Amino acid sequence: MPSSATPLSALSADDLAARLTTVRAAYDELKARGLKLDLTRGKPGSDQLDLSNDLLGLPSSYRDRSGADVRNYGGLEGLAEMREIFADLLGVDVASVVCGGNSSLTMMHQVLTALLLKGGPDSPRPWSQEPVVKFICPVPGYDRHFTMLAELGIEMVSVPMNADGPDVPAVRALVDDPAVKGMWVVPTYANPTGAVCSAEVAAELMAMPTAAPDFRILWDNAYAVHHLTDVETKSADALGLAAASGHPNRPIMFASTSKITFAGAGVAALAASAENKAWYLERLGFAAIGPDKVNHLRHVEFFDDADGVRDHMRKHRDLIAPKFTAVEDALSSRLAGLGIAEWTVPTGGYFVNLDVLDGTASRVVQLAKEAGIALTPAGSAFPHGNDPRDRNIRLAPTFPVLDEVQAAMAGVAVCVELAALESLTRG
Amino acid sequence: MPSSATPLSALSADDLAARLTTVRAAYDELKARGLKLDLTRGKPGSDQLDLSNDLLGLPSSYRDRSGADVRNYGGLEGLAEMREIFADLLGVDVASVVCGGNSSLTMMHQVLTALLLKGGPDSPRPWSQEPVVKFICPVPGYDRHFTMLAELGIEMVSVPMNADGPDVPAVRALVDDPAVKGMWVVPTYANPTGAVCSAEVAAELMAMPTAAPDFRILWDNAYAVHHLTDVETKSADALGLAAASGHPNRPIMFASTSKITFAGAGVAALAASAENKAWYLERLGFAAIGPDKVNHLRHVEFFDDADGVRDHMRKHRDLIAPKFTAVEDALSSRLAGLGIAEWTVPTGGYFVNLDVLDGTASRVVQLAKEAGIALTPAGSAFPHGNDPRDRNIRLAPTFPVLDEVQAAMAGVAVCVELAALESLTRG
Repeated sequence: MPSSATPLSALSADDLAARLTTVRAAYDELKARGLKLDLTRGKPGSDQLDLSNDLLGLPSSYRDRSGADVRNYGGLEGLAEMREIFADLLGVDVASVVCGGNSSLTMMHQVLTALLLKGGPDSPRPWSQEPVVKFICPVPGYDRHFTMLAELGIEMVSVPMNADGPDVPAVRALVDDPAVKGMWVVPTYANPTGAVCSAEVAAELMAMPTAAPDFRILWDNAYAVHHLTDVETKSADALGLAAASGHPNRPIMFASTSKITFAGAGVAALAASAENKAWYLERLGFAAIGPDKVNHLRHVEFFDDADGVRDHMRKHRDLIAPKFTAVEDALSSRLAGLGIAEWTVPTGGYFVNLDVLDGTASRVVQLAKEAGIALTPAGSAFPHGNDPRDRNIRLAPTFPVLDEVQAAMAGVAVCVELAALESLTRG
Repeated sequence: MPSSATPLSALSADDLAARLTTVRAAYDELKARGLKLDLTRGKPGSDQLDLSNDLLGLPSSYRDRSGADVRNYGGLEGLAEMREIFADLLGVDVASVVCGGNSSLTMMHQVLTALLLKGGPDSPRPWSQEPVVKFICPVPGYDRHFTMLAELGIEMVSVPMNADGPDVPAVRALVDDPAVKGMWVVPTYANPTGAVCSAEVAAELMAMPTAAPDFRILWDNAYAVHHLTDVETKSADALGLAAASGHPNRPIMFASTSKITFAGAGVAALAASAENKAWYLERLGFAAIGPDKVNHLRHVEFFDDADGVRDHMRKHRDLIAPKFTAVEDALSSRLAGLGIAEWTVPTGGYFVNLDVLDGTASRVVQLAKEAGIALTPAGSAFPHGNDPRDRNIRLAPTFPVLDEVQAAMAGVAVCVELAALESLTRG
């Protein structure tokens, strides 16, 4: 099915009806192929995991640089040499870093539950004792950020996620409400749009006045080093900007090696001001016996240093960049110019953001499902899964092999056009 | 300094004064030796950690029995084969088990914070919305249980920990208060007394009526398989007894391999009713990307099965039983019959409970410290570190080498007698 330079909206009713017949036939053909493909999972492929298989035989020792026995209890903030690697990658001082277990999501949850039950160092009271707590959610965003807030009873207010980060005027309009206690930011190669928060936007977010004295920006830098091109974008210096503007406790930064080494068996990290870090470690001390330091040492031996991580990430790039190219090729060749879809061409991260004709995203996902192509549920990049325009679809091309990405995306393009034609011919 | 069969309280004032002079001289000699010994840490010794060094080179594969890639995300309840090992060791059905990260303490904290913020499946409301929440704490007990409750704002009410478990009449007298929402139990080789909760006591705790419909017994079976003799005591069947008495959701069981393999890099587990487990996994799903399944597989390959764990524990026993014998020998030879100290002779676990003359525990710890022997702070086995009789000291003999245990305990015995003589001659 060739693409057309004519926007569908410019076609006559007859032409639309004819095209609907053609595309429906293409869809029936697609369905008949009995595919079983999955673009839902922001997971590394097994070829990516293979890059780290040497970890399975490490560490070769059980002492860290200081001579401590990593097998035993203790060392709540993590191995110094592991903290140094994260500090270098995140552009922060090593003193600000804590290395934890296998999940930065868990560290975010620890921070939020501690804010709820105890309050932060600058909180008038525990957040759970406030009549209502709200969080600003740039959309589209990461579904797990939103479901975590919903679980914890924190209300969500959305702002647009622009190409240079969260929409600052929209954020400013919200933060004079003292119930607005914080916001999510995925600063680099954001899930799902791939947007990179500019230094200017970051500076404004860190400097803006907020009614809540304990306003927190949970700065989830999950894709800090996950470049898809040879332009290795640097993340904005959230901690430095916050300190310089007199709000050192505002940002808490998160990262992990989940999409660097083994997704389920990596090392997570948090970085924050001295006061926030002490507060976090004090809370953590009541709940933990120290992180898995053997796994820290395993990673340190595997990488040596931050440059080892950067080299490693280039191998990931070589494996997954072709998959992103396949997504772009499929969408461009089949949908460009039709006026029924826009999509991102990310330079890093794990996702492509696809915006289809308003009101058709759920239908696209349903059509794809019936053709054996699993897509992330429409709306999942919005709080409570509710995309007010029903147009947003997150594509995750890393986990399937390249052939499957190509096959799946060719199918998705058919579904996008079919749903649009159904909508346009309906009335 | 020979021991005496005469209780000190039976000595005349002159004899006491003479003995004080002798013991003070012995203490000065002890101090002059410039020791640097530590009996505070309930940590495995490095010879114990060495027993598991093969783990450092495992796993040899990255697929579990079902074929799943353990390197990737997912598998929230843990590897089936790891869960089977815990089920066998804990005497529970495998369906009830969740395997997690490296710390059962973290799982306890997750459960308590979830009860506070969400409530359990049978809670009228989240515990944090109750005017007051109280927990029953058998004393002496595990300091980290108590500090966790204090951190979370849960009030503590003490009951005696008897040789067969928590004092049931004392517990019964408390649970008709609906604010009393739960209790701690370390059922087997309890920290610090080594007491083992009998099946009868367990049955009563599981069956007793409680005013709180969501009463929880956090059943921390940390030492389930940590036998010090060849009598391998079986833990009471908490889940079975609770289900049989109509309170299936009452107990939540915890365990880990921390004192089996690597203290800081082991695998923790939770076991509970179907409803509790579903509730826990639902909460966990908002906060985690799955446990470190590579570490699960590493442990499965290392042990094969539960009998592999039991065999391994016998090697631990061979290493640490002599240290417990050294404690017993030092205390018996120097303090027996003086009427100033009682101590446990545990058949499992990690601690010896030493009760000295009322009002002298803090002084003993201070004297020991000045002689270079670090002891756990007096009172730490009580809520808020407050031992009303100031008599309880927890001895942890596993971490130092045998010579050090012997030297330290000889010194401790001198300190115990000196503090007693100071007290007896004062008044």
